Amino acid sequence: MEMPKIDASIVARKPAIVAALLQVLPPDAVIYDEIEVRAYECDALTAYKCPPLVAVLPRTTAEVAAVLRICHQMGVPVVPRGSGTSLAGGALPTGDCVILGVARMNDVLETDYPNRYIRVQSGRTNLSVTGAVESDGFFYAPDPSSQLACAIAGNIAMNSGGAHCLKYGVTTNNLLGVTMVQMDGTILEIGGAHLDAGGLDLLGVICGSEGQLGVVTEATLRILPKPEGARPVLIGFNSNEVAGECVSDIIKAGILPVAIEFMDRPCIEATEAFAKAGYPKCEALLIVEVEGSRAEIDEQLALIVAIARRHNPVEVREAADDDQAKRIWLGRKSAFGAMGQINDYMCLDGTIPVSSLPYVLRRIGEFSKHYGLDVANVFHAGDGNMHPLILYDANKPGDLELCEAFGADVLRLCVEVGGCLTGEHGVGIEKRDLMKVQFAPEDMEAQLMVKDVFDPKWLLNPAKVFPLDVTASRRA
Amino acid sequence: MEMPKIDASIVARKPAIVAALLQVLPPDAVIYDEIEVRAYECDALTAYKCPPLVAVLPRTTAEVAAVLRICHQMGVPVVPRGSGTSLAGGALPTGDCVILGVARMNDVLETDYPNRYIRVQSGRTNLSVTGAVESDGFFYAPDPSSQLACAIAGNIAMNSGGAHCLKYGVTTNNLLGVTMVQMDGTILEIGGAHLDAGGLDLLGVICGSEGQLGVVTEATLRILPKPEGARPVLIGFNSNEVAGECVSDIIKAGILPVAIEFMDRPCIEATEAFAKAGYPKCEALLIVEVEGSRAEIDEQLALIVAIARRHNPVEVREAADDDQAKRIWLGRKSAFGAMGQINDYMCLDGTIPVSSLPYVLRRIGEFSKHYGLDVANVFHAGDGNMHPLILYDANKPGDLELCEAFGADVLRLCVEVGGCLTGEHGVGIEKRDLMKVQFAPEDMEAQLMVKDVFDPKWLLNPAKVFPLDVTASRRA
Repeated sequence: MEMPKIDASIVARKPAIVAALLQVLPPDAVIYDEIEVRAYECDALTAYKCPPLVAVLPRTTAEVAAVLRICHQMGVPVVPRGSGTSLAGGALPTGDCVILGVARMNDVLETDYPNRYIRVQSGRTNLSVTGAVESDGFFYAPDPSSQLACAIAGNIAMNSGGAHCLKYGVTTNNLLGVTMVQMDGTILEIGGAHLDAGGLDLLGVICGSEGQLGVVTEATLRILPKPEGARPVLIGFNSNEVAGECVSDIIKAGILPVAIEFMDRPCIEATEAFAKAGYPKCEALLIVEVEGSRAEIDEQLALIVAIARRHNPVEVREAADDDQAKRIWLGRKSAFGAMGQINDYMCLDGTIPVSSLPYVLRRIGEFSKHYGLDVANVFHAGDGNMHPLILYDANKPGDLELCEAFGADVLRLCVEVGGCLTGEHGVGIEKRDLMKVQFAPEDMEAQLMVKDVFDPKWLLNPAKVFPLDVTASRRA
Repeated sequence: MEMPKIDASIVARKPAIVAALLQVLPPDAVIYDEIEVRAYECDALTAYKCPPLVAVLPRTTAEVAAVLRICHQMGVPVVPRGSGTSLAGGALPTGDCVILGVARMNDVLETDYPNRYIRVQSGRTNLSVTGAVESDGFFYAPDPSSQLACAIAGNIAMNSGGAHCLKYGVTTNNLLGVTMVQMDGTILEIGGAHLDAGGLDLLGVICGSEGQLGVVTEATLRILPKPEGARPVLIGFNSNEVAGECVSDIIKAGILPVAIEFMDRPCIEATEAFAKAGYPKCEALLIVEVEGSRAEIDEQLALIVAIARRHNPVEVREAADDDQAKRIWLGRKSAFGAMGQINDYMCLDGTIPVSSLPYVLRRIGEFSKHYGLDVANVFHAGDGNMHPLILYDANKPGDLELCEAFGADVLRLCVEVGGCLTGEHGVGIEKRDLMKVQFAPEDMEAQLMVKDVFDPKWLLNPAKVFPLDVTASRRA
């Protein structure tokens, strides 16, 4: 993956940059030692690494504004970072940048139960947002797999989803307002705790903008009352296609489970070896979870099981109690860890119309043969958000490049069937060159124009989201 | 309400403008006779009127692009128009503009039940979207009161809501993609039938942009399976405040009815005189509707009634059958018509945190005494979307101005309690001068920058959304 050339003139000015930053931040918030900055050299897309020039760890919106004002004046690129859990390289530094980490900004600023929102600093982790309200019976819905570690700032940047987003929507559906600092240090209040926005609704374009438009420092999030109960059913099939058809039929019937997760045989086998969840031997399995009162759960599960039975399942296993429910989820939740034990892998993220699932799964199987690389499929099937894991050997020359080509073919296929390059991981550096597949030149130009006005010097999160040739022509 | 000066040099070029438009449109699609253009002199905010220079009625996206290209080249302002049902003056012409009406663009382009969407031309009316899918058991959720007449184009422009949006969200929650033509004639595809968007998500800022960024010609809309059944309960109280507290308690309890509608005594009395729905004599009433299976409905209504009983209601009337349900809704649905029979009125539209309802209702009562104008309250209480109707006499000099001042006080109050100037009607001309109350200069500047890049000559829908002094400095 090509990275932009390091601007040597910026590197040469490192002492002046550090001195300016130390004027507005306490000493423990500016990291510039060459060894220490290595802690920030990559995010969760660890195939790509580059230590930043400097890292800063502000504690307030005012400090963030002061840092950005300095970098704007001195022409220094800034890479915003939440917890560094991006799977798309969204927080990968360049060698001439300041990494702006919001991890120390993790306070709860306000909770309002009657109006059902919480306001937090953006460095707060996803799970600790729920942690702040769960004793009062509430929760924050989007639940990325990394929710123990990932920050709300990153969730907003990538418009993150999770297993339960089929029912509750992704971040954009649960975000009410933000405080955002523009690259020139201007502090904006966008949205609020209320419905609708006067004038242009900028919140939608901020959410998912991958740090291209500004640095979000505070967020107002919708919180929901915890459902009375939830129960999963595990359904095994003897082919991927049939499992895909079953998903399509459940959605078509108008049932809205809280989650429909899909795993194929390679993924089931790796998971069993690792987590021993007792999954059946089969080609594909679905975990379908519904929630509500006991009566509502019974009613919905009966409908789902009836649909499944029409597809000749190998096994239908309904959880009889909490313990069985946990065992059903255990394998799914261990899937990524299990795959990591046996192989290097690249986790893709694309979205397709639910009705295309059987076709897309068949084509991925064909790609797998063509490239000679195994693939394991595990994903949020209900909303068509796929996560094929391509297995490769990082120590074998050429394997990473094969894997990248395979991944690009899968994402092109997603666009071809009427889907999208991304689901919940964002574009980052991983998919930036594929943006031309998704967008016609005039459609991309509309996005570039918006980037232009928020960050006219193109200093924010360089080399991400847009193809490098496009970015280069823009900065010149 | 001040309107911008008419540009006499544009008016002088009318023959050339008409000739150019006739090059790209058939003769029946260009209206320029001075009497005929009067059909477009206002929308549903009839207090303000101004005939346009020309009106055009294109049938395709290509025709819209051709019209905009001509107007862009000739420097002629364009006011997009759906069905002209805006209550905020969103489609009010200026004397030197071309009105671009999409009413003839009303085809269904595609329906896809497995993936649950419909693609339509934007001039199609809201109700006829549901009409196209209801025999197959589906519906389009947002339901503005004007749904028989209003166009999807206007729904998108204003991010329209409706009585049932408490459960299903407003337009932005049900819009998947648009085809939009920029002022210079560039055709953009934004969003699609899939989840998420690569790069910057422009769909959010397009929805609710009131024709400031482009003309939406096609839309992909989410459709939902019709619920099994629905049932309302009518609850009367002897004070506005207590009714407001009951709404707050229902929401706080985590119940999500499909609608919670509120009417106060002036509104109940006018409605009874007009529609004779048999409403009880009381100070305030709520209509709370829930939906689902019979068991789900019973369970939810039992909870709601239990909460209501804690507030000493005057009456609790559960619908026993469809006929009774219709009678309960009859009064609410006739409310605006009923008020129009007895008075001129101005219908406000603002949003507040649900917990502020009792306070805001008390303050509106105080304003009413101060201005000497009666007010009737009817609104979507569940999501805090208020529609106070201020009653005045259009024939009494000074009454309209008093009414405008009263309205501005109410909207300032909405912002003061943490709410918003608009709920579902948009800013239009009605609220543009209040935008400074809602937004700090830098927050408004961020919106203006986005407007700048989509419409650099500021030709689209002039004199709306932003204060006139702001617009003037921008165009200069």
